[in-house]
Amino acid sequence: MRAMSLTEFGGPDAFALSEYETPKAGAGEVLVRVHATSINPLDYQVRRGDYPDLVPLPAITGHDVSGVVEAVGSGVSAFKPGDAVWYTPQIFGGHGSYAEYHVASEAIVGHKPAGLTHLEAASLSLVGGTVWEALFTRAGLRLGETVLVHGAAGGVGHVAVQAAKASGAFVVATASGYDADFVRSLGADVVIDYRTEDYVAVVNRETGGVGVDVVLDTIGGDTLERSPRVLAQLGRIVSIVDIPNPQNLIEAWGCNASYHFVFTRQNRGKLDELATLVDRGLLKPHVGAVYPLAGIPDAHALLERPRNGVRGKIGIAVVDENASSQP
Amino acid sequence: MRAMSLTEFGGPDAFALSEYETPKAGAGEVLVRVHATSINPLDYQVRRGDYPDLVPLPAITGHDVSGVVEAVGSGVSAFKPGDAVWYTPQIFGGHGSYAEYHVASEAIVGHKPAGLTHLEAASLSLVGGTVWEALFTRAGLRLGETVLVHGAAGGVGHVAVQAAKASGAFVVATASGYDADFVRSLGADVVIDYRTEDYVAVVNRETGGVGVDVVLDTIGGDTLERSPRVLAQLGRIVSIVDIPNPQNLIEAWGCNASYHFVFTRQNRGKLDELATLVDRGLLKPHVGAVYPLAGIPDAHALLERPRNGVRGKIGIAVVDENASSQP
Repeated sequence: MRAMSLTEFGGPDAFALSEYETPKAGAGEVLVRVHATSINPLDYQVRRGDYPDLVPLPAITGHDVSGVVEAVGSGVSAFKPGDAVWYTPQIFGGHGSYAEYHVASEAIVGHKPAGLTHLEAASLSLVGGTVWEALFTRAGLRLGETVLVHGAAGGVGHVAVQAAKASGAFVVATASGYDADFVRSLGADVVIDYRTEDYVAVVNRETGGVGVDVVLDTIGGDTLERSPRVLAQLGRIVSIVDIPNPQNLIEAWGCNASYHFVFTRQNRGKLDELATLVDRGLLKPHVGAVYPLAGIPDAHALLERPRNGVRGKIGIAVVDENASSQP
Repeated sequence: MRAMSLTEFGGPDAFALSEYETPKAGAGEVLVRVHATSINPLDYQVRRGDYPDLVPLPAITGHDVSGVVEAVGSGVSAFKPGDAVWYTPQIFGGHGSYAEYHVASEAIVGHKPAGLTHLEAASLSLVGGTVWEALFTRAGLRLGETVLVHGAAGGVGHVAVQAAKASGAFVVATASGYDADFVRSLGADVVIDYRTEDYVAVVNRETGGVGVDVVLDTIGGDTLERSPRVLAQLGRIVSIVDIPNPQNLIEAWGCNASYHFVFTRQNRGKLDELATLVDRGLLKPHVGAVYPLAGIPDAHALLERPRNGVRGKIGIAVVDENASSQP
């Protein structure tokens, strides 16, 4: 099979399209023909060498699969050949999804929502799990609360807006003005153009000075320091972007804030819940650009570019490599 | 009545023993003869001027009352004259407890645990509420988890050790070697002498490298930065000490840490739960030093002194002013 192999840690050119032996499904495993995968910030963090000890080279990386079961190993009961499936491959263990075939334990695999294309499903598995973990498991977002989503047009952000709205939250979102209509179409009640408006001032105006209950930070920068200025008492911040420089948190005590730091964990559990939201029309991933398997280096370069103009996710069409579109 | 009045923001000498008119109980209020109060770090923060806008001068401060109901206002049903009561006066509103009499809404008053002296009860109301808020409401400490209590011999710490132990946690505590036996007597399973041992190394040794589920920081310093090195996955840190200098939190993401910042909130709700723990013999405040009402400046000076040798709380005997003892 063909796979995009990471041969060294570095820039997008560190990838090389290579021939690998097609893997086989062992006991309890499924062999999946990968129809689509997608690109996440975790992918370029791995590629540039943020986790060298966890990623022996050469490596097939990639963290989203949507595809069709080709074969099953002994003891597999929940899936059969021909089933459409989606999942996040085991993180930091075994091969990733930048390949024509992938083998996974059936325990981490879900039935693909029928209403999504493979590209859409592959654009939701990892970010959907992250959003669930961030907003609900960690921050405990509840009906009627107000949430501020930073980077609402991005891969995680655009799913977070929809999930927060579906849960009964009032959603305030930051995005570039260019993306305001897109973010509003996802369900955001207030969209703040971070290029021209001060989000602290807008949030305080929109909430009558009360502040928001939850901040989801997909951006980094000074959000950890500034968030207490927009947080209600007992407000929660969830950050999925690690920040290497020190943060002044002195304002966090005054509002009894909680900071939740989220780093991707294996989280099979939420695929079915996400599928239910999709089935009910409450959640739909947006694929803002598509590349073929061979275009992964270009896709990485695009995702790493600030203000790249991509809405939602960058998908990789593994099966139909002609199906590509760039912004 | 006599009261200790804060006449200006500053050092312990900013207090002056003064005559005030004895207050009266209005509708829904109780007038309490204060038998004892105690000293908290919040008290010297108020005194030195950390919250000037919230404390109009001159002010009677103080955040713990144990005493006897002298009179009740109209509509009061839960209390009658002669009842022994304890509570935390409304924080940043009305008079505090450094006085011979105090008036409070019956809504914030509890029946004093019979097994505690007034000095003991007055040493538990605020710190007990803080511990409950920190360990259970915010950090969600659960049966079977492991908790690290920093400053375990102090006012909050010595109650936290007992409450954590009572809840079924394995308790690791830091204290000076001088206090090790005291902290062990409170229920700590492991006591680390912070003067001679590196707590990161000890915790990792004691937990087989897994780490603790909850860290309670009553100390400040570099605990926020270092805690990820002792935290298990999804571990929680609760800090009750605001820290003005920036913190490097880069290690917090890797262990999916949550940081809970706690600043005193009015919290009537836990007096009865604390009383139940006292009644069952699971919790007993320790009064390490006692001063008369006129000795509050000395008590403040003592509490502010690092490594002051006081175990537990510094109590103020308002009624029996001869009952004083200093370390």
